[in-house]
Amino acid sequence: MTDDALVIFTPSGKRGRFALGTPVLTAARQLGVDLDSVCGGRGICSKCQITPGYGEFPKHGVHVAADALSEWNAVEDRYNRIRGLTQGRRLGCQAKVMGDVVIDVPPESQVHRQVIRKSATQRDITMDPATRTYYVEVAEPDMHEPTGDFQRLADALRGQWQIEGLSADPRLLARLQPALRKGEWKVTVAIHHDHHSGPKIVDVWPGFFEDHLYGLAIDLGSTTIAAHLCDLTDGSVLASSGLMNPQIRFGEDLMSRVSYAMMNPGGDKEMTRAVRTALNDLAKSIADEAKIDPRLIVETVFVMNPVMHHLLLGIDPVELGQAPFALATNESLTLPARDLDLSVLNDHAQVYILPCIAGHVGADCAAVALSEEPNKSKDMVLIVDVGTNAEILCGNEHRVLACSSPTGPAFEGAQISSGQRAAPGAIERVEIDPVTKEPRFRVIGSDLWSDDPGFAAATAGTGITGICGSGIIEVVAEMRMAGLLDAGGLIGSAEQAGTARLIPTGRTNAYVLHDGSAEGGPRITVTQGDIRAIQLAKSALYAGARLLMDELGIDGVDRVILAGAFGAHISPKHALVLGMIPDVPLDKVLSAGNAAGTGARIALCNVAARQAIEDEVKRIHKVETAIEPRFQEHFVAANAIPHATAPFSELMKIVTLPEVSFNPAAGGGGEGGRRRRRG
Amino acid sequence: MTDDALVIFTPSGKRGRFALGTPVLTAARQLGVDLDSVCGGRGICSKCQITPGYGEFPKHGVHVAADALSEWNAVEDRYNRIRGLTQGRRLGCQAKVMGDVVIDVPPESQVHRQVIRKSATQRDITMDPATRTYYVEVAEPDMHEPTGDFQRLADALRGQWQIEGLSADPRLLARLQPALRKGEWKVTVAIHHDHHSGPKIVDVWPGFFEDHLYGLAIDLGSTTIAAHLCDLTDGSVLASSGLMNPQIRFGEDLMSRVSYAMMNPGGDKEMTRAVRTALNDLAKSIADEAKIDPRLIVETVFVMNPVMHHLLLGIDPVELGQAPFALATNESLTLPARDLDLSVLNDHAQVYILPCIAGHVGADCAAVALSEEPNKSKDMVLIVDVGTNAEILCGNEHRVLACSSPTGPAFEGAQISSGQRAAPGAIERVEIDPVTKEPRFRVIGSDLWSDDPGFAAATAGTGITGICGSGIIEVVAEMRMAGLLDAGGLIGSAEQAGTARLIPTGRTNAYVLHDGSAEGGPRITVTQGDIRAIQLAKSALYAGARLLMDELGIDGVDRVILAGAFGAHISPKHALVLGMIPDVPLDKVLSAGNAAGTGARIALCNVAARQAIEDEVKRIHKVETAIEPRFQEHFVAANAIPHATAPFSELMKIVTLPEVSFNPAAGGGGEGGRRRRRG
Repeated sequence: MTDDALVIFTPSGKRGRFALGTPVLTAARQLGVDLDSVCGGRGICSKCQITPGYGEFPKHGVHVAADALSEWNAVEDRYNRIRGLTQGRRLGCQAKVMGDVVIDVPPESQVHRQVIRKSATQRDITMDPATRTYYVEVAEPDMHEPTGDFQRLADALRGQWQIEGLSADPRLLARLQPALRKGEWKVTVAIHHDHHSGPKIVDVWPGFFEDHLYGLAIDLGSTTIAAHLCDLTDGSVLASSGLMNPQIRFGEDLMSRVSYAMMNPGGDKEMTRAVRTALNDLAKSIADEAKIDPRLIVETVFVMNPVMHHLLLGIDPVELGQAPFALATNESLTLPARDLDLSVLNDHAQVYILPCIAGHVGADCAAVALSEEPNKSKDMVLIVDVGTNAEILCGNEHRVLACSSPTGPAFEGAQISSGQRAAPGAIERVEIDPVTKEPRFRVIGSDLWSDDPGFAAATAGTGITGICGSGIIEVVAEMRMAGLLDAGGLIGSAEQAGTARLIPTGRTNAYVLHDGSAEGGPRITVTQGDIRAIQLAKSALYAGARLLMDELGIDGVDRVILAGAFGAHISPKHALVLGMIPDVPLDKVLSAGNAAGTGARIALCNVAARQAIEDEVKRIHKVETAIEPRFQEHFVAANAIPHATAPFSELMKIVTLPEVSFNPAAGGGGEGGRRRRRG
Repeated sequence: MTDDALVIFTPSGKRGRFALGTPVLTAARQLGVDLDSVCGGRGICSKCQITPGYGEFPKHGVHVAADALSEWNAVEDRYNRIRGLTQGRRLGCQAKVMGDVVIDVPPESQVHRQVIRKSATQRDITMDPATRTYYVEVAEPDMHEPTGDFQRLADALRGQWQIEGLSADPRLLARLQPALRKGEWKVTVAIHHDHHSGPKIVDVWPGFFEDHLYGLAIDLGSTTIAAHLCDLTDGSVLASSGLMNPQIRFGEDLMSRVSYAMMNPGGDKEMTRAVRTALNDLAKSIADEAKIDPRLIVETVFVMNPVMHHLLLGIDPVELGQAPFALATNESLTLPARDLDLSVLNDHAQVYILPCIAGHVGADCAAVALSEEPNKSKDMVLIVDVGTNAEILCGNEHRVLACSSPTGPAFEGAQISSGQRAAPGAIERVEIDPVTKEPRFRVIGSDLWSDDPGFAAATAGTGITGICGSGIIEVVAEMRMAGLLDAGGLIGSAEQAGTARLIPTGRTNAYVLHDGSAEGGPRITVTQGDIRAIQLAKSALYAGARLLMDELGIDGVDRVILAGAFGAHISPKHALVLGMIPDVPLDKVLSAGNAAGTGARIALCNVAARQAIEDEVKRIHKVETAIEPRFQEHFVAANAIPHATAPFSELMKIVTLPEVSFNPAAGGGGEGGRRRRRG
């Protein structure tokens, strides 16, 4: 019998020979096996659970005897009694190698475990957050060697965890001394250590601290603020919450907020205060929802457009409202949450803000790039993040371009006569029968169509209150397909289109989608003004995409990804009919959901991703729509439904559009001709 | 004729050959000559003034022709017209080398100029502050290359000033954009860059900013807070100011403040708030006095004892009140002044706090070590910083020891029946005629002795209000020398000592130093209790010094330095008579004035000094008086006046002490014998 043994770890396959009596945790560390431990092998934290395998392992060429590990010991026994240890598991710090052995590290014992994302098109996140907890035993003070408590803690972290160059805010030092004494010189410290800054203490607790730490990934939009509360141990989302950006009262869109700051001295400060207050409210409510102490939120990642970026940071956004749209800073920022008045979080919580790409293309677009990785795509991909402004990325592994396009808020239901934001009671799906011109629709909060039995009862609670962004796109596209709208965007009259649903409103017509006035509800119509607003928005979106394609020297793309909370609800077919996006096969139009929020989550869970996106943002080529004459050309050419500048081969496989014209000057009208849909 | 020329700089003696046409500033930079420039050679700042020498320089072996420099140019002409240029001076950035030349750099054109200290025993300070201003020209934003304004500023500072790795607080970014535009892309930035942290922007001004920057050196004592306002360009002290530490209302001495924190929940926070408020008041008043904007104060250095240190930082000092006297941190700290609520200073002012030596020996003692440099002394030096606690350093270039001794506040006039702090009206000097036993004295605010003509008129304004620390030491020593007091510290009766100035007070006697009751003023007496308080204080001081000497294995020292504002006023002779300090020749007792404050000033003006004292503090050996049994022995043995443990060879060269005894138990008394003073 030799005095060492072969240890093989799965799934990594790492192997090595160790002296008999070596704890499994020690072997794992020496081999660089990803086996977690917070207590440093003291049998307290139970993070280092492993599953030994016994018997024959022909693949590894090894036989594992029943006594390959030391016997179950008192520490394991105690842990099992109090907490319960899954059958077959051992504590890696207690079990010692006594013979050749194969040891499996289950996913929950891996520090850098992967979070498997639900959609197959999305990549996994490897957990490597900036803030982690460490349990340490600290030397007691000695009058003959008068070092400070902080210095002895730093020594302990250096010796026990190889953490060099630790620093701490003096305000944290005030908490250190009581914690060390209460914990009898054993404490758990949370340490923040990202790619730009050295290790810094975030919090300290007496003894072994068992709770998890949390982070917030926040997509700070002009209209809505969306937050995900993530567990920094496994990346799981405990709660997601959103609220309206209270800056709306200072201006609906970005430019009106910049104007507010320009016209009102101190206006930028007012908006900064408003959004910071809202963020505290949001953090509090999301922590309440998840039933966690908000003081355990130690990290926050923000993504947002440049104006929101500056207003959050307390920087007057005035320069972003005029050429040359100079950002105060275009790099990422790591700063204390306290500096943003985020007082609800942990006192020493750190904030990471992704870099902005340009004065019009913000950290939200950088987050979309981080989530969707156009720079790693083999095929040519167009990514459109539809919000009040549309951010557009186009490219592949060779080159990625970005721009921003001023779509305005029409896609979010704003500036639409019956528009509203996506909330229960809002019409989100619409179909219009091309023969009868009668609509049917669905509202948020019910799965029933309006002509299904029980619809009235199902929507009695919310009523039918308006049309949200996805609903307005569908109804405009459906009106076009049903011949109620000509290619120029003009609504026909009742006589022209042959339906009493079209009613005159001054010199133009409107389509009555729903009349709830008999029940005291609103009459929901689509007006000529609504059509014009949607035409402007979609022309801007298309023109931006087209500009990037020009710059890349391409006429089409292989894939289109619709991002943004709203993008998740857009029907690809209707988007194609409207001419929002270039002509691609229907199955190549994908939704990435809130890709900016996903990018924020990735940056929250993995510090390497922060470095990666900072590097990538430097490589992305920015195209400024505002000074590019071709943008205006594309914009004008894209006004028709669908626009007139792309081949429609793909679109025509799905629908046939009626050749109607309601423009009296054009001499057409009244034809009312209909074509049968194929799809 | 060659196309290069020899350039010799004085006083450095640096020399080199340069192509004709090279600006003098460029030549100086290439040779590493210490020639200042804030504007980077643009003819704006006038900091690079030089004095060319003409004619023969046999020492340098060179003849300087009249046309050795290019002609006086338009920039110099304009500067001279507006500001005036001293006769014979040129601007180094404008004058070009046209032939062999000797160029003198006057002191005010040196970046690292020396501040010549007044006293010959004190060393000079080389100016090298952490915060300096830089004038830069920044590239304008370009829509096609959307970098942030901060990044372009950082690029400019890298290119024009070789500053790498610049950072800025996001709150400063808010001020950057308006400054750049107002200055038309020319700004002056103040950058802080010390030995621990990378360069960080402190402030930014449009165009060329001419004002100087300032720093505060603050000695935060338990009783008084003393501040010097220094010009960071030349180290000059513009104003000095002090105020009472408002924490006095929570406890007179350190231990009573620690007790207050222990007995009153939140008491430490109260004391922290009080001292921070006082510091703001002090900063404001000192800036007002010097007629500068307090926002130009960009740096502050603090020195203080450990309890003040913790209370300033918001750390509960409770651990400092009990063994093992554990500091929260013993290292130096650099932090934003904002974190200490010092809102009067520049928003981004930085604070540097010297390291503490031990739980009883603070940053004030470290500052004394920085100022007095015992570690560079060839002879054995004892340094005593007399305050409420005495900090004691003893050693030489081989080894330095430190301890703290609990003298109590008697040396500051507290706990003395007629004691008061040093202020106009306080008796500070005393002589007692050994024959008549009649006193004469001087009070603060007048140079006259009390028996000089005009004394009454001179002191009418302030009155004679009490005895300050130096006065009480003198009167006790004089009483001893006049035979009014025996070696045990007992005051004789009127009969025993033969003077009606001695009056009975209960079972003991008191000496009437001054009776102002006829004029409605106080009767100022020295009571037996006062003598006992001084005996306790001086015994503690001596015992501490003796303990360090024991540890060093020495029986005497070569020099004694009395530090502390109070130390500056102690008469060496009286200190020796009292037995406060070991027996040394009178001319070897030196006063260093407020050495802690001087150390703070040195650290303020020179970042290298910060590193030096941090290194030295690690080497100083700390002796803990509280746990050292010999301290108690020395303390008891040092109770007599003078103490009984040292040879008095040196003391006896100055005075002869009467061999009186007033202790009835000892059977002495009434002798009244007097000896003639020699001195």
